Amino acid sequence: MVLEQKLAALRSQIDACDTELVAILAKRNKITAQVGQIKRDSGKPVYIPEREIELLAARRAQAQAQGVSGDLVEDILRRMMRESYQNQQSELACVSPELSPAVIIGGKGVMGQLFAKQLRRSGIEVRILDKEQNDSQDEVLSGAKLVLVSVPINKVEAIIENLPKLDDDCLLVDITSVKEKPVTAMLNSHKGPVLGLHPMFGPDIAHWVKQTIVVCRGRGDLKADMLLAQLKIWGTQLVEMDTKKHDEAMQIVQVMRHLTTFVYGQFLAKQTHSLREIKSCSSPIYQLELMMVGRLFAQSPGLYSDIMLAQFDNVESLLEDYQDIYEQTLIKLKNGDKAGLIEGFSDAKSYFSDSAESFLKQSRALLNKANDSKVLD
Amino acid sequence: MVLEQKLAALRSQIDACDTELVAILAKRNKITAQVGQIKRDSGKPVYIPEREIELLAARRAQAQAQGVSGDLVEDILRRMMRESYQNQQSELACVSPELSPAVIIGGKGVMGQLFAKQLRRSGIEVRILDKEQNDSQDEVLSGAKLVLVSVPINKVEAIIENLPKLDDDCLLVDITSVKEKPVTAMLNSHKGPVLGLHPMFGPDIAHWVKQTIVVCRGRGDLKADMLLAQLKIWGTQLVEMDTKKHDEAMQIVQVMRHLTTFVYGQFLAKQTHSLREIKSCSSPIYQLELMMVGRLFAQSPGLYSDIMLAQFDNVESLLEDYQDIYEQTLIKLKNGDKAGLIEGFSDAKSYFSDSAESFLKQSRALLNKANDSKVLD
Repeated sequence: MVLEQKLAALRSQIDACDTELVAILAKRNKITAQVGQIKRDSGKPVYIPEREIELLAARRAQAQAQGVSGDLVEDILRRMMRESYQNQQSELACVSPELSPAVIIGGKGVMGQLFAKQLRRSGIEVRILDKEQNDSQDEVLSGAKLVLVSVPINKVEAIIENLPKLDDDCLLVDITSVKEKPVTAMLNSHKGPVLGLHPMFGPDIAHWVKQTIVVCRGRGDLKADMLLAQLKIWGTQLVEMDTKKHDEAMQIVQVMRHLTTFVYGQFLAKQTHSLREIKSCSSPIYQLELMMVGRLFAQSPGLYSDIMLAQFDNVESLLEDYQDIYEQTLIKLKNGDKAGLIEGFSDAKSYFSDSAESFLKQSRALLNKANDSKVLD
Repeated sequence: MVLEQKLAALRSQIDACDTELVAILAKRNKITAQVGQIKRDSGKPVYIPEREIELLAARRAQAQAQGVSGDLVEDILRRMMRESYQNQQSELACVSPELSPAVIIGGKGVMGQLFAKQLRRSGIEVRILDKEQNDSQDEVLSGAKLVLVSVPINKVEAIIENLPKLDDDCLLVDITSVKEKPVTAMLNSHKGPVLGLHPMFGPDIAHWVKQTIVVCRGRGDLKADMLLAQLKIWGTQLVEMDTKKHDEAMQIVQVMRHLTTFVYGQFLAKQTHSLREIKSCSSPIYQLELMMVGRLFAQSPGLYSDIMLAQFDNVESLLEDYQDIYEQTLIKLKNGDKAGLIEGFSDAKSYFSDSAESFLKQSRALLNKANDSKVLD
């Protein structure tokens, strides 16, 4: 059939295009690896925002001139940049050799390993201290210029309190998800510089570029700034905040979301509809929400329970706020109080203000991506 | 400086690669538009799963042979396919000319417009009926072979009840998010074929390929199947379900998520932390959750309140289930009952079973994409 033959010919042409694409990606990989080496040798950060902006603008303009969607080109280039940043981080510039040797306490945990790897890539000597090496703790810590504590939240204070005396020029850092108590414990246990960090990412990131780290200063800006300079080389975004503000924000962000997600997962488990049936009746946005609930239950039950218990210390007033709004909303719904619902809606709308629209736009991009990845039969 | 010169040279090489990429995309666009025409002429669907699978497998293999990540190539190709599907839907095969002429009631609404456009692209004559044309209703509906009702949920039954007599071979369809009442109303008001649809997507989709539509049959499979055949040409995934099962699932999916999202948005608005501060303390997963909450408040307060009110009919037992689990969880947290938390966690874990891991994987892909899109300064 003629149409079938025409279709086959066009498909061959598409395959030829895509084969060229693969060749370009291979070539680009080799170039970006070299870029990484030059950045390392010249002490440059992996992420240079101006370059990214210029590159995208130039290619968008070219695309439009050729009748190609600028968004298409930008999406593909951003995906290629992820690969490029991954390539470039195999060897990194060292701008703070004063942090060597470093010791990671809890260095066999996933976050500890992530930091150890990244410090080593920057030419810093890293020693690991984990449960098994408790006997040789003093020896491992001797002469350390950076001690980074990466241990479970319910152990962090005890571990800090039991540290042997560190050198006065050693920077003591923790990366727990609460900051007030660990930073206080570090200030009490160590006379030298102290810094609290909270990396806003997990161990499974593709690279460090654009990842956020909250910085809570303790004592000794000079040494702290050396570590922060190194974090900037890795491309991270640093947000400085005091420990109290940070911990309050974390409670608002995490506690209530953990609670509602945890409750919703159990609620679903009680229903007679299977997950498959529920998924069939979910629009992409609900599938995304279902995904965000479900992903929580891939975690370890014990570890997760510990995190929730640690977070639920001292949150009575938050819980009361939530409970009040929950009950008021139910009453409005029961009474068919449309005006009351609109009022509540408007309060939240003004809180989100302009962001609501940009959230809508961003989530649309993610939903399109989720649809791209579907495989139907 | 020598390093600077080397860097500039490498960047020119990258720009040359990316310029080639833009040219390939332009070439690919022209080919896929031709593929669209052949599919239209030969009555083929836009989405052919085997072709997608083969294409991806072949390019992944090529990539790996050249030391390029298979995932990178697959992500880029899937993004290019989105463009290709968009290109191919400008003119579509018509497999059911018996549906012409069609009338969209509420055809000036966003979903009505979406359906009107897609039917017209398939060569079906489409007439629009909206509030303004109420006087000429009989005239517009005269001789219609498909009447598709796309109106707000609180008006759908009244509009169906007030329809003039339609031809006995006219297929009457509604696309509301509840199905039992509209389908019953259609069966009562019309003697001919009746079909309930619930498109699991909004008006802002890039294309129809892989979008899910829930199908609730009313009466007259022959004519209904003609519309379903046309929906398959557009690449949609059809999931058949009875109206009751559908409505129960929708309550589980939407009611509780709407409630908790609505409550959480108001809760955030009551906090003293600004959205900016909250965002700084959010890991990508919480930023995604924040986005999903915030996007809700980009909607119209009145429309949203109507949707919630319509959904909260007859959901007392669901609300009780939710409330029970919520209260039990708070008690466990207050008492530091780790064993109790683990038990609740395990119930949900077994409900999600294998999906928890795949949800984790999928959400990781989306979080990586969200990170790719960041612009820092």
